[in-house]
Amino acid sequence: MDSCIFCKIVRGEIPSEKILETDNAYAFMDIGPLSEGHCLFIPKTHAERAHEVEDEVLSDIAIMMKRVAIAAGIKDYNILQNNGEIAHQAVMHAHWHLIPKPSKELGLEISWNTKPSIDQSVIAERIRKNL
Amino acid sequence: MDSCIFCKIVRGEIPSEKILETDNAYAFMDIGPLSEGHCLFIPKTHAERAHEVEDEVLSDIAIMMKRVAIAAGIKDYNILQNNGEIAHQAVMHAHWHLIPKPSKELGLEISWNTKPSIDQSVIAERIRKNL
Repeated sequence: MDSCIFCKIVRGEIPSEKILETDNAYAFMDIGPLSEGHCLFIPKTHAERAHEVEDEVLSDIAIMMKRVAIAAGIKDYNILQNNGEIAHQAVMHAHWHLIPKPSKELGLEISWNTKPSIDQSVIAERIRKNL
Repeated sequence: MDSCIFCKIVRGEIPSEKILETDNAYAFMDIGPLSEGHCLFIPKTHAERAHEVEDEVLSDIAIMMKRVAIAAGIKDYNILQNNGEIAHQAVMHAHWHLIPKPSKELGLEISWNTKPSIDQSVIAERIRKNL
């Protein structure tokens, strides 16, 4: 997409600290890192959200993240992928964050407010019917 | 692994609200959901962290999450995968969260404290050398 900042990175129109690429996907360092080594994995073809990305591209990205985690020598880290502005997606080109967690203060900070009153069986049945 | 709660779920020794499975992976509803539809994707063979999971299993899980997001009819959601206790991993069997974000109050809550002073070029070079 012409105006998309991540498409411009893939085309080399905006510089990036590239780590790795395949025919389908591109990995580079995040310019606003939460910790040292925070990097991003994106499909080369524009798609806004994870469920709009082709299967083989999803597969490439999952395997690339593993390779990079091993190469970076990290054991404690988060993988995060946000879809929609309300879910903290800032660039509307699907991207996966690999975020090292070297200490409590650095990396991803999460609040975990469970809602045990939710009945999951109804939604599970709906999902199974639609699969 | 004998004592692992997620291995017991895969073996059917602990009940779960199953959504989907492949030869490699198993998907079920989270019993402590952050929002309606919050579900988990796990390798059937025990592995503690994402980078210890076989490539084909990672691939299966990535594609399963897409299928479930489409079947659930969600557009706003987060995918989260935590490695290590410090990174909020509560069960030490690798798992991927698919967490719908229907409103500001429900779903995943994140703090995003960027550290723009970090020089990412050095770590990028180290990763590239180790790939």
